[in-house]
Amino acid sequence: MVRIKDLLQWIDSWAPFRYAQSWDNCGIQVGNPQSPVTRVLVALDPASSVLTEAQGLECHCLVTHHPLLLRPINSVRTDSWPGTIIMHALISGIGIIAAHTNLDAARVGTNAQIEELLGLESAEPLDAEADLCGDEQYIGIGLVGLLRREATLESLAGKLSEVLGGAVVRITGDPQKQMTRVAVCTGSGGSMIGKVLASGAEVFVTGDMKYHEARLAEENGLAVIDIGHFASEKLVLEPFGNFLRSKAESEGEGLEVFISKSEKDPFKVIA
Amino acid sequence: MVRIKDLLQWIDSWAPFRYAQSWDNCGIQVGNPQSPVTRVLVALDPASSVLTEAQGLECHCLVTHHPLLLRPINSVRTDSWPGTIIMHALISGIGIIAAHTNLDAARVGTNAQIEELLGLESAEPLDAEADLCGDEQYIGIGLVGLLRREATLESLAGKLSEVLGGAVVRITGDPQKQMTRVAVCTGSGGSMIGKVLASGAEVFVTGDMKYHEARLAEENGLAVIDIGHFASEKLVLEPFGNFLRSKAESEGEGLEVFISKSEKDPFKVIA
Amino acid sequence: MVRIKDLLQWIDSWAPFRYAQSWDNCGIQVGNPQSPVTRVLVALDPASSVLTEAQGLECHCLVTHHPLLLRPINSVRTDSWPGTIIMHALISGIGIIAAHTNLDAARVGTNAQIEELLGLESAEPLDAEADLCGDEQYIGIGLVGLLRREATLESLAGKLSEVLGGAVVRITGDPQKQMTRVAVCTGSGGSMIGKVLASGAEVFVTGDMKYHEARLAEENGLAVIDIGHFASEKLVLEPFGNFLRSKAESEGEGLEVFISKSEKDPFKVIA
Amino acid sequence: MVRIKDLLQWIDSWAPFRYAQSWDNCGIQVGNPQSPVTRVLVALDPASSVLTEAQGLECHCLVTHHPLLLRPINSVRTDSWPGTIIMHALISGIGIIAAHTNLDAARVGTNAQIEELLGLESAEPLDAEADLCGDEQYIGIGLVGLLRREATLESLAGKLSEVLGGAVVRITGDPQKQMTRVAVCTGSGGSMIGKVLASGAEVFVTGDMKYHEARLAEENGLAVIDIGHFASEKLVLEPFGNFLRSKAESEGEGLEVFISKSEKDPFKVIA
Amino acid sequence: MVRIKDLLQWIDSWAPFRYAQSWDNCGIQVGNPQSPVTRVLVALDPASSVLTEAQGLECHCLVTHHPLLLRPINSVRTDSWPGTIIMHALISGIGIIAAHTNLDAARVGTNAQIEELLGLESAEPLDAEADLCGDEQYIGIGLVGLLRREATLESLAGKLSEVLGGAVVRITGDPQKQMTRVAVCTGSGGSMIGKVLASGAEVFVTGDMKYHEARLAEENGLAVIDIGHFASEKLVLEPFGNFLRSKAESEGEGLEVFISKSEKDPFKVIA
Amino acid sequence: MVRIKDLLQWIDSWAPFRYAQSWDNCGIQVGNPQSPVTRVLVALDPASSVLTEAQGLECHCLVTHHPLLLRPINSVRTDSWPGTIIMHALISGIGIIAAHTNLDAARVGTNAQIEELLGLESAEPLDAEADLCGDEQYIGIGLVGLLRREATLESLAGKLSEVLGGAVVRITGDPQKQMTRVAVCTGSGGSMIGKVLASGAEVFVTGDMKYHEARLAEENGLAVIDIGHFASEKLVLEPFGNFLRSKAESEGEGLEVFISKSEKDPFKVIA
Repeated sequence: MVRIKDLLQWIDSWAPFRYAQSWDNCGIQVGNPQSPVTRVLVALDPASSVLTEAQGLECHCLVTHHPLLLRPINSVRTDSWPGTIIMHALISGIGIIAAHTNLDAARVGTNAQIEELLGLESAEPLDAEADLCGDEQYIGIGLVGLLRREATLESLAGKLSEVLGGAVVRITGDPQKQMTRVAVCTGSGGSMIGKVLASGAEVFVTGDMKYHEARLAEENGLAVIDIGHFASEKLVLEPFGNFLRSKAESEGEGLEVFISKSEKDPFKVIA
Repeated sequence: MVRIKDLLQWIDSWAPFRYAQSWDNCGIQVGNPQSPVTRVLVALDPASSVLTEAQGLECHCLVTHHPLLLRPINSVRTDSWPGTIIMHALISGIGIIAAHTNLDAARVGTNAQIEELLGLESAEPLDAEADLCGDEQYIGIGLVGLLRREATLESLAGKLSEVLGGAVVRITGDPQKQMTRVAVCTGSGGSMIGKVLASGAEVFVTGDMKYHEARLAEENGLAVIDIGHFASEKLVLEPFGNFLRSKAESEGEGLEVFISKSEKDPFKVIA
Repeated sequence: MVRIKDLLQWIDSWAPFRYAQSWDNCGIQVGNPQSPVTRVLVALDPASSVLTEAQGLECHCLVTHHPLLLRPINSVRTDSWPGTIIMHALISGIGIIAAHTNLDAARVGTNAQIEELLGLESAEPLDAEADLCGDEQYIGIGLVGLLRREATLESLAGKLSEVLGGAVVRITGDPQKQMTRVAVCTGSGGSMIGKVLASGAEVFVTGDMKYHEARLAEENGLAVIDIGHFASEKLVLEPFGNFLRSKAESEGEGLEVFISKSEKDPFKVIA
Repeated sequence: MVRIKDLLQWIDSWAPFRYAQSWDNCGIQVGNPQSPVTRVLVALDPASSVLTEAQGLECHCLVTHHPLLLRPINSVRTDSWPGTIIMHALISGIGIIAAHTNLDAARVGTNAQIEELLGLESAEPLDAEADLCGDEQYIGIGLVGLLRREATLESLAGKLSEVLGGAVVRITGDPQKQMTRVAVCTGSGGSMIGKVLASGAEVFVTGDMKYHEARLAEENGLAVIDIGHFASEKLVLEPFGNFLRSKAESEGEGLEVFISKSEKDPFKVIA
Repeated sequence: MVRIKDLLQWIDSWAPFRYAQSWDNCGIQVGNPQSPVTRVLVALDPASSVLTEAQGLECHCLVTHHPLLLRPINSVRTDSWPGTIIMHALISGIGIIAAHTNLDAARVGTNAQIEELLGLESAEPLDAEADLCGDEQYIGIGLVGLLRREATLESLAGKLSEVLGGAVVRITGDPQKQMTRVAVCTGSGGSMIGKVLASGAEVFVTGDMKYHEARLAEENGLAVIDIGHFASEKLVLEPFGNFLRSKAESEGEGLEVFISKSEKDPFKVIA
Repeated sequence: MVRIKDLLQWIDSWAPFRYAQSWDNCGIQVGNPQSPVTRVLVALDPASSVLTEAQGLECHCLVTHHPLLLRPINSVRTDSWPGTIIMHALISGIGIIAAHTNLDAARVGTNAQIEELLGLESAEPLDAEADLCGDEQYIGIGLVGLLRREATLESLAGKLSEVLGGAVVRITGDPQKQMTRVAVCTGSGGSMIGKVLASGAEVFVTGDMKYHEARLAEENGLAVIDIGHFASEKLVLEPFGNFLRSKAESEGEGLEVFISKSEKDPFKVIA
């Protein structure tokens, strides 16, 4: 029988929790490590719609990328998020686990998905923690590599929008600029611009770029492709689910793994 | 119909939440301010036995002196306290409210109960916040006053043990010392010794005294009577319950109020 | 003859610098308060293109909304921003002044422009500093008010895009939701979501919304219209320029005031 | 001739000062490292009665477990402790040395005395500093081990009271609970409860337990035996004195070592 | 009979302790407020030679400008200062009181002595605490005023050296510069240069000027006369002693007051 | 062609920047690492007179010991230092580099110059960073060594004044005291007195000694020779210039190196 604590151990073998940033809060968000699990839902966010999906699927565990309790709480108010999620999770007997920056920094993680999508060569970390660098599963915080063929900012952005299922993509910089060296930081990469400039990248693929960050890039001649926080991370769910399935199988344990179908990007563009 | 938010407002009219210390966490611990309440349990601690008692009495709200979430949490682990309490409260639909240092500092609060028990005269605050001092309901943090008749340390301690139902009482100092000026700080008063010395008190009645605090008192000629954290605060529950009952009545609302019968001092003395 | 220090004093009479947030850095960024000024350029950002525009117009002063030196610097590196701007400003003899959060909080400022655009009634501050509240020119940090006529999220967003010259607008929430109560915070308003929820607003018009902020709004039933940081602030430049012109005139001073024509939103959307 | 600095070196060879906690203040409290010493008194506390005892015995040095100046001082007020002690020590020419948490963490220290008293087997540290773990004299901060024979909480508490000379012992938990795995932390162990729970101990033997700590233990099914801060540490004085005597002897130095007979537990129980 | 606590009260009536800076440590440094005093020595520093002088004069109290324990201590080491002073003070029964920045900021204090020496007119504070400004005895932190007649830097410095008994004086700036507006900060004034520049002073009279402070003054066209920390403060001792004498007289108390004759500037110049 | 970045690399090979203190700000203060340099001026301070000298000599780079921007700035005000220097440097195309505490700590640095001047033997660091100690070019922070022949304080001070070109030298202590063991800390050494005392030095040669530091030395029997901040560091300029010249030569690059002739000690003594 698989328990919550087994899932934690499996995740730790795939995207070790020690890779997480010091400010992060990965692992159990709600629940009991001893609780048995036969059905699990994998998603980006511990959102109401996702919890409802988990209830509909009769899951006992929800594994999300974003932590429910990134910031500590001093009350469980059930008239607002995240208290609503805590309440429904406890009542439905659904444990919630987060795999956040440990997943970003792992060889199988969110950044690696975009690296593969772009077919980057000779990729290196944008930033890395010295004591983890020898570690096989560790690829660091963000990465920078080379396109196989030079492309314009516009064409690269267009291609990314297409392969990401028509995601709305925002660019900063001259659309006709040719580029080869690409930096990637999934999620919200604005604080990495200094590292990106130091890396010699010509374009930075990320999400959640803010205005002043875009200006800073512009002033320093760095092009930016903001593919959206959601689209930049969504891709990891499939391999994550596959890993859990095959792990359970190899352990001889019965576990049904679902990928969330209810999640949508919270932003819609009005032209 | 009484709601959780009404209870908060009533408590605020009796022991205003603005009297609470800055490090405290009073108010809603678990629940929804809009939830209706017809039966409420009043207790010192949000302990498992107390929650069970509340479930048995079919209460919708538990009002405790000690906050469930004095320290913020970054996970709701249901295999340990306080996660166990959160889970059971949410499943049973019981909201939890805390009235802690606001109650200590109020004219109707824990310190005032001991003041009355000792029959102190000319009582003044041990410490007080300047901007609250004009406030009628505010008596400050701890108090100091005069016994009507001089007593020895031993006799005063013995009398306190007796009126507190045989509570185990620990004394520091010469048992035969005569004393008139008494300082009081319910709960855990060790950090107040400097204020007590400055007040000219001859004896300090409090709970949870630690060894180095007792030595400090001893070296400075201050006697101490430690009546126990539990016994020092238990007395307030009865008037607290009475207040809620009469308040409901005066508002024309139906509300049954219970005082916990399951709570016991966690310490037993082995001679 | 107008000097830099006169401009500072004029701005202070219109959007007092004491309204600025404690973390902000308004006032002189580069230059000498004694320098004479006959031509001034007003813009949102101290960007390279804007400085070039100022040089082309033979201005002696550039007044921007965003401070060049929001964060202190410990070197003036002329191969990167902001060192490049400092160098060119000094060589061209152009002083740089910032009017940032003082302008946001003033009755004539960025938020008031959007309030007027939306035709809000009964507007109140989202947040305010107590000691400034009696001040006539102070409207606080963000605001909340009522539309004259109920509108759907989609129609309101569409109208905003239109009156803002076709700006790309992103929405979060149900496009068909009807709403009347609108909160506004120009620039980057994500950190204000708690205040917006407390204000009872049904929709929040702001810029630079991030993913987790959008999710938080979504979970709490708050609609969001992100009109873009740039578009949310651009409107203030015209009245700001008019004020400087009329102020100079009323002082009998010759001063030519230009509004930047070179500034563009750094983001382009690729569908 | 033995000097204060020799005593420091000897103590350091027995309970190395580098084992002390970062917040502690071991070593010389009052005096001159060059002062000669022929008679030394060993005690738990730098109390008035102990200093008087040292004067009566014509000692030149007082070695205590608890530091006189744990918190730094900005005046030497001779009308209150610790100024009174400083004054009398200087006038009598008595140096004062503290061996506090270095002694707690040493193989010969306070925790080891209780370990031996209980006859614990397979003892391990409750907590330990990684860089000291290879050190032969280091046993860490608190310990956990196995009783040779299962015992009830009540019988274990009774036995401890007896072998500690009738010390008043307080228990938390079911008196009839059978237990084998025992955690120990002498002095004041309340802050260690998290580590104790993680160690799998069934009962925690310590001193100075506070109410909320007892409740936390109770809620998590951990029994507690509070043997008193004083009694938990008193035992170490005898071996400490013996060490100093034999060390002096082996160095061919004349040194008389006394163990305090005046110290008493500051608490007396009134039933 | 005069007691230490009476001296404190008298000093407080002349140079109120509430004028002291927040980082300062005025008041009792060593001793008992109840101790009687018939002879008192007034000096700048609690130095060994001064304490010997106090012993020779059979004083029971030493009042100094500089606090013995400006920084808190966590041991009283009698082989180094300040432990040596503490030891000898306690053995000789001499209490030590400090009147430091309260004296600097008082109308009768160190800065006022230099103001008078220079015959400054229209003096105002360099800096001041808002809530003390209405106070008659308060003159603020440093001051700035006008010479009755313009003087060159060199002549002013020469005159100061002369009236200060041939003190070594260091100047920064053009010796022939004419000046009228003079800032004064006794003791160590380097951190006040920003305030001095803002005050419009042409020359700054102070002590303990450091190299980078002198350079900063030089670059900003501010002349400096460094009269030495010692010489800048020595003048206050006479009026301080006179005050104590007359206060005792007016209270009908016998008190002999001495001004230190043993103190010398620790610096000697080798040309 | 030599560039600013080459100069940085050369300095780093001679006085590695990693030797700098954590609070320091070495390296480029103003300028572009890519700018070519054919003439460089070496000086102690980035002062106005020095910049004028650099302009007169048509230098493209000014290398100073003291950083222009030791403290970060949030505006470039051109009516006061350091803004004046930044403006003139940028307009004249002069880059500014600082080599500060890295130079102090290097074998070729400021302290080593004084060591050589005094002919000290068996010199050791006063303080050192553990991880740099194996490094050949590192001599640590300050040093202590032996004079070849015992000397009196007065004669040593006189000799230093003489060899430093008649610098004004201040001494603290008995002029006739004989001494052999000398500590050295160039610049401003007052914060090192504790280390100096621990080193067993009999005299401390340094600059910028303040009054309370001198008193502390006096009380602990330590003699001090304050040779002035300026004189203590001036000597390093010559070898620094020589290094740059020979380095350029060995690289086959044309570079003219000048040592500042305009710098003077900001202090003049008026007897």
